[in-house]
Amino acid sequence: MGKTLEFFFDFMSPPTYLAWTQMPGIAARTGAEVVWRPMLTLGLFQLTGNRPPMTVPNKGKYSPVDLQRFARRYGVTLNRNPHMMELKIVPPLRGALVAQERGEFAPYAKAMFEAMHVDGLNIGADDVWPQLLEQAGLDAAAYRAGIAREDIKETLKANTQEAADRGAFGAPTFFVGGEMFWGQDRLDFVEEALRG
Amino acid sequence: MGKTLEFFFDFMSPPTYLAWTQMPGIAARTGAEVVWRPMLTLGLFQLTGNRPPMTVPNKGKYSPVDLQRFARRYGVTLNRNPHMMELKIVPPLRGALVAQERGEFAPYAKAMFEAMHVDGLNIGADDVWPQLLEQAGLDAAAYRAGIAREDIKETLKANTQEAADRGAFGAPTFFVGGEMFWGQDRLDFVEEALRG
Repeated sequence: MGKTLEFFFDFMSPPTYLAWTQMPGIAARTGAEVVWRPMLTLGLFQLTGNRPPMTVPNKGKYSPVDLQRFARRYGVTLNRNPHMMELKIVPPLRGALVAQERGEFAPYAKAMFEAMHVDGLNIGADDVWPQLLEQAGLDAAAYRAGIAREDIKETLKANTQEAADRGAFGAPTFFVGGEMFWGQDRLDFVEEALRG
Repeated sequence: MGKTLEFFFDFMSPPTYLAWTQMPGIAARTGAEVVWRPMLTLGLFQLTGNRPPMTVPNKGKYSPVDLQRFARRYGVTLNRNPHMMELKIVPPLRGALVAQERGEFAPYAKAMFEAMHVDGLNIGADDVWPQLLEQAGLDAAAYRAGIAREDIKETLKANTQEAADRGAFGAPTFFVGGEMFWGQDRLDFVEEALRG
């Protein structure tokens, strides 16, 4: 009987993308069920007083080098998204909640993560998001209606607040029972906790 | 023929202590020569605009949990130092340069790291540092004279500036050839680079 792995994520975050690529392997090896919790990382930064790594120039230069090392280790493609400063990320995150309701989370997340971190698109832009949905075989009109719902908006805010309240300060953040793990570079500890 | 591993360190930093505990194993497995470069982490933070993790409360709560996970994995003791806010760290760091001159770096570093991160002492305090030296069989009077020398003071400053200029923003930072690695949690990549 596998344990539950809560995965607080944001499509914007490159290390979260790297962690996402490793979930099928972890689930297969541990029998864990992954519970996907979309949150707004920039909101979490505001709630917790944290700030993005690129605000320290040396850290901003090092971070992509570090991430590429993991991408090579995992054998996955990671490209820098050139739209980072103008990114519309709220619609795709609300869309993740719609996808969960519709039982379409896996194809939706794959479409968002790869468009963001492989193809370098502004995934939430009005002329991009619906196309990505259609290419993934998802009903763009239904998603557009879904992300306009108040309860969907509130759930994204509540997830972000809950992450802060439970001790998170960045993405990705994982919980296994009462234990919190921050960063895709802690997946080995996450896997140990899931086996333990 | 082993490569060279440059290790920019500060006795104050818990992850640097953890990395220090792993150096004998890495050197034995790779044949690498470790070049120890003392630097003042708080000075590096000022030079680079970085700040300590505890300035974000959630990060400050998580960090010791994370470090203990590695301490357990490594099978080493790591205790929180209660003097963090009043720590005198400059004399011990200057002392590291004196120890290198005298060919006594290994016993000196062991005395400082363990007093700091196992015994929880304010290692640079006037009534502590000389005692630690004597307990380690080192000549406290010679070290006291050494750390008053202008060239020793300048070398510590220059190391810190060099770390910033080469892209560092925290401790520990490692260089293998032109490649930089930040954090004791990157020692697996460091070891790969030393083998490569």
